[in-house]
Amino acid sequence: MKIIRNPGVSSWPELLARPVFDREDLTTIVADIVNAVKLNGDAALRELTKKFDGVEISDIEVSNEEIEAAGAEVPEELRAAIALAKSNIEKFHRAQIQQPLAVETAEGVTCWRKQVPIEKVGLYIPAGTAPLFSTVLMLAIPATIAGCQEIVLCSPPDSDGRVNPVVLYTAKLCGVTKVYRIGGAQAIAAMAFGTDSVTRCYKIFGPGNQFVTMAKQLVAQFGTAIDMPAGPSEVAVIADETSIPEFVAADLLSQAEHGIDSHVVLITTSEDVLTESLKNLQEQLEQLPRRAIAAEALKNSVAVVVNDIEEAVAIANEYAAEHLILAVDDAEAVAGKIINAGSVFIGNYSCESAGDYASGTNHTLPTNGFAKSFSGVSLDSFVKNITFQKLTADGIRNIGPAIEVMADAENLDAHKQAVSLRIERAAGDF
Amino acid sequence: MKIIRNPGVSSWPELLARPVFDREDLTTIVADIVNAVKLNGDAALRELTKKFDGVEISDIEVSNEEIEAAGAEVPEELRAAIALAKSNIEKFHRAQIQQPLAVETAEGVTCWRKQVPIEKVGLYIPAGTAPLFSTVLMLAIPATIAGCQEIVLCSPPDSDGRVNPVVLYTAKLCGVTKVYRIGGAQAIAAMAFGTDSVTRCYKIFGPGNQFVTMAKQLVAQFGTAIDMPAGPSEVAVIADETSIPEFVAADLLSQAEHGIDSHVVLITTSEDVLTESLKNLQEQLEQLPRRAIAAEALKNSVAVVVNDIEEAVAIANEYAAEHLILAVDDAEAVAGKIINAGSVFIGNYSCESAGDYASGTNHTLPTNGFAKSFSGVSLDSFVKNITFQKLTADGIRNIGPAIEVMADAENLDAHKQAVSLRIERAAGDF
Repeated sequence: MKIIRNPGVSSWPELLARPVFDREDLTTIVADIVNAVKLNGDAALRELTKKFDGVEISDIEVSNEEIEAAGAEVPEELRAAIALAKSNIEKFHRAQIQQPLAVETAEGVTCWRKQVPIEKVGLYIPAGTAPLFSTVLMLAIPATIAGCQEIVLCSPPDSDGRVNPVVLYTAKLCGVTKVYRIGGAQAIAAMAFGTDSVTRCYKIFGPGNQFVTMAKQLVAQFGTAIDMPAGPSEVAVIADETSIPEFVAADLLSQAEHGIDSHVVLITTSEDVLTESLKNLQEQLEQLPRRAIAAEALKNSVAVVVNDIEEAVAIANEYAAEHLILAVDDAEAVAGKIINAGSVFIGNYSCESAGDYASGTNHTLPTNGFAKSFSGVSLDSFVKNITFQKLTADGIRNIGPAIEVMADAENLDAHKQAVSLRIERAAGDF
Repeated sequence: MKIIRNPGVSSWPELLARPVFDREDLTTIVADIVNAVKLNGDAALRELTKKFDGVEISDIEVSNEEIEAAGAEVPEELRAAIALAKSNIEKFHRAQIQQPLAVETAEGVTCWRKQVPIEKVGLYIPAGTAPLFSTVLMLAIPATIAGCQEIVLCSPPDSDGRVNPVVLYTAKLCGVTKVYRIGGAQAIAAMAFGTDSVTRCYKIFGPGNQFVTMAKQLVAQFGTAIDMPAGPSEVAVIADETSIPEFVAADLLSQAEHGIDSHVVLITTSEDVLTESLKNLQEQLEQLPRRAIAAEALKNSVAVVVNDIEEAVAIANEYAAEHLILAVDDAEAVAGKIINAGSVFIGNYSCESAGDYASGTNHTLPTNGFAKSFSGVSLDSFVKNITFQKLTADGIRNIGPAIEVMADAENLDAHKQAVSLRIERAAGDF
């Protein structure tokens, strides 16, 4: 980690900049995949799965029998852990349900809005080095609570053409209606445009590699909504002299192990904590199976020593971390000053892993500074708010004349006329 | 208007397809403008304003004196109308404020979320044929209620380098903090990247021409959030035998007059209403100053005759209109069946103009079928929700073991370690 002491405010943006990786331009490759699926549907999916996943698949949809059978492969201990996580995630997301909101803004003018589920949503669950069943929990649970009619899940097949059994088990448990054994950009295209086998979805959620991310960006241009722009995962930890360096080190590493492009920031008011945290970091790193990845991520990461907690908070707000851990005295008061972050972890016992898996908050969060303007996934992500209005004869009498004046000032005569005709009619309607 | 009777379900998507206009590919032109502003800041803004707006400007920011003076140019009647609209819009949007939501998901595990304003937002207000001061109301009022610190507004200068006085008056009234006399793609770029004069914004709102829309899409790829994907305005009207054809015609026209690419759909259960509405449409059209535009828009539009109200609702849900007018018997019950729409207008006195100007609902709404997954602008658009969590020693004891099991199953050892260390420590903490 690069260590910086008391940087001036003007240097913060550069200091906190996420590393930019020279990625091959994938646009053409991904656009070709997306177009192939759009044109040739299931045939393209089979062909691309053979090419990229190295397996020939016949049924694209995973059958109920396969899903049922998967349950038996999940150890009892893991089932119990998933059940506990599910319960907490449900409690937090169910509390986010909003009742319709109605306001009589003027006499005879009632306006309201209502949460309505997005009918068809698609969830993407990568396979890669580990089955991300925790992401199934984070996406399928709010989709089910929202009341989405179709909850579609795509995940790449293994070399036997099978989707990971823990993913299948969790999908069924959390209300997913259809599972498809497809991955990569082709899965995103299939959900965006639909094929004979795959249900077309109006919004697509979930993490993925560069191909998946690019495919989500592409289909978004054609009218499919996506959860949020994606970037590598990141954590910032604010630590003062009350923090526990062993924990600080573990939290930094639990971010760094995600990938070599993960970004980790330590902001501390204490030279001692810095020294101790880095020492612990080195010790813990050596024990990690994924130490090569974590070490690489740490090279791009930064530790900042600041004068006081106010400066630490200001830097954290400038960074706008996906995950922000407050390992400081009176952490709850400090949390009140955070204005830019995806999710905030308060005090020494609140580790990022808690939110990643089981506390109840969602782990799909804005990265790359997007926390300045984006929220993480929540129940809100699976609904849209429709507004409604009802005017009575009194209502049109009350606000109609103002509308006429405003429409006139904007030179929109038909807008004015639509009101004038109603004011006329309302004159005889008491 | 094209008239279709009792179309089969499979023909609906094609029937309801929005017209696609062959637009010149603007990507290169707009990318050049955006890059020029990114590289050369204020100098580029002055040059581009001279080129596109035909005026040399010195001060890019509109001074307080100019803003104060603008007020005197707004007629008293219009001020009163704006005040009434503001009051209603404030009432509806203030009711959308959410108090922090806290849930103890397990003993010792408290999760909450809190609405936090986006610090810096940018509003774009086109000039063109008319000053869209109503859009200033719709964007600045929720931004102010949300508590955004910087509310920046850009609007193109006229040939004297002035921003429209009604726009300036409304901006001041609604809490805009800075106004810039710039328009087009250059204004969007300035707000996205910042210049010496222009404050950088984290999210950009507002309508605009093709250049503006393309610029919003471009800056979104570089990390500035935007309100929603934009498309031409549209309305669908469901009318049964209780509707008033004169009103139906006026409502269709008040959409059609927006632009030649506006899209208008009439869905009716009654041949008589169809005949009468089209007759009224023709009569009213001839009286309209903007009749050439409206007539052109109507050419691309469609009237559908259906068997019953259920079919009408199904078609409306497939179309997912920006504005949906329910000119039908028991309209409120029908409204309960609407699952895809931006804003719904219930009954004969609820015209689109009411929501466009003064009832209280927001007029910035999803077009082009995006209402299937997007909401219109609301208070929510100006905040993000940050989640927080606090675990006690009890909390980590309660959920820690489940997190260990899950992290283990995902092969994320550092995630597990961060919890194991805390479980160990918590064992001595009662």
